[in-house]
Amino acid sequence: MTQETSDRPRRTQADLSLPAYRRGVVALLGVLSYGELVGFLTIAQEAGYAPSSRDKVTLGKVATQEFSHYERLAARLAELGADPHQAMAPFTRAVDDWHRRAAPTDWLEALMKVYAGNSIANDFYREVADLVDEETRTLIREALEDSGQVEFAAGELRRAIAADATVAGRLALWGRRLIGEALSQAQRVAAENDDLMGLLVDDGSGYGLDLGGWMHMFTRLTDAHTARMEALGLSA
Amino acid sequence: MTQETSDRPRRTQADLSLPAYRRGVVALLGVLSYGELVGFLTIAQEAGYAPSSRDKVTLGKVATQEFSHYERLAARLAELGADPHQAMAPFTRAVDDWHRRAAPTDWLEALMKVYAGNSIANDFYREVADLVDEETRTLIREALEDSGQVEFAAGELRRAIAADATVAGRLALWGRRLIGEALSQAQRVAAENDDLMGLLVDDGSGYGLDLGGWMHMFTRLTDAHTARMEALGLSA
Repeated sequence: MTQETSDRPRRTQADLSLPAYRRGVVALLGVLSYGELVGFLTIAQEAGYAPSSRDKVTLGKVATQEFSHYERLAARLAELGADPHQAMAPFTRAVDDWHRRAAPTDWLEALMKVYAGNSIANDFYREVADLVDEETRTLIREALEDSGQVEFAAGELRRAIAADATVAGRLALWGRRLIGEALSQAQRVAAENDDLMGLLVDDGSGYGLDLGGWMHMFTRLTDAHTARMEALGLSA
Repeated sequence: MTQETSDRPRRTQADLSLPAYRRGVVALLGVLSYGELVGFLTIAQEAGYAPSSRDKVTLGKVATQEFSHYERLAARLAELGADPHQAMAPFTRAVDDWHRRAAPTDWLEALMKVYAGNSIANDFYREVADLVDEETRTLIREALEDSGQVEFAAGELRRAIAADATVAGRLALWGRRLIGEALSQAQRVAAENDDLMGLLVDDGSGYGLDLGGWMHMFTRLTDAHTARMEALGLSA
């Protein structure tokens, strides 16, 4: 739980009977579902860059876990009476754009996208999970569970940087591109979708972040990214 | 069971104690494992062409099933005392080449690769499964189980052909490319690998196909492909 959200009123399961809150949860699960679905496809695609069958298997496992997360989120949407595909529809363009704009061109860039890109997304959704009822929060946290991919990617990246000093500059640049694209897409997604924005930001409901809290959240995401880059010995 | 193999002596579980037979089985499971692993990655990649989130999910399910087939085959290799990655190593180039040479450039070509390409591969492995002991055969047949993808692809292709007559010619051409590449890669894989060749073709062991049987098998694969193309109203 973050400082900004811990002292604010919390949503409960009963709030799901309120249309605006319910629409907000459906939107949040919708964007997260599509993120997991395309995350699955993208990781599988990026595993094509893997130099060995062993690495392909490692990323393959990560990818199939993303797919099972997608399936759980979609099942929850159906439980809430929403069609998962309709719930995902408002977000497909922004998520597709993120992957297009942050498409790695080799194995190390693919690893960095797993290490930094997926981590930024996970941090974001974890923060946002503080704003919803406990059942939804638990589901979201489960869907974000790391299956060891961040550590795997970090290990491979460290080895590559140690073996070739010129790699560091290129990866630092790529990391900056990833954080920039991620933050701008996240802001765009929220800004364009009233249901999601209503959930995340307090528009008079008494729940959600105020503008200061919203900005602080992005500061925390950036700080966490900086720390991750420094942990690899890269300037952020 | 095919005509050519039904009247020949059958391998049994006990034969796994014979080094040559065991090496043959390891080679067969190795090429099949790598095929499923890369098949998983490739289907996930081709799902990127899917026009809707619904189609992405359909192909996503197919892909994750291929991965679980891979995992079962790899587990069997380990049971036989073989390292799955070593067992796959002799075949990675040929399988990668097949996917590179048969890379679809749009959604309909991707569907045709599922419909025709995967079917050719399945027919091939199903024939070959007749040449091994029952436990290995059962495992291979399970790994080849169709999870509805062929029917799904056929339905989509039929709709596309009905909606736009110019599609038929292009897909017929692409189908010919797929069968040509598939047969040449299959022959190359077998020819280049002594362990696999020793399993498939009778080199004095008293088991496997004779040269005539081998050629007949490829004739059957081609005939089945022709029938599949005609079922879509395409010339083969």
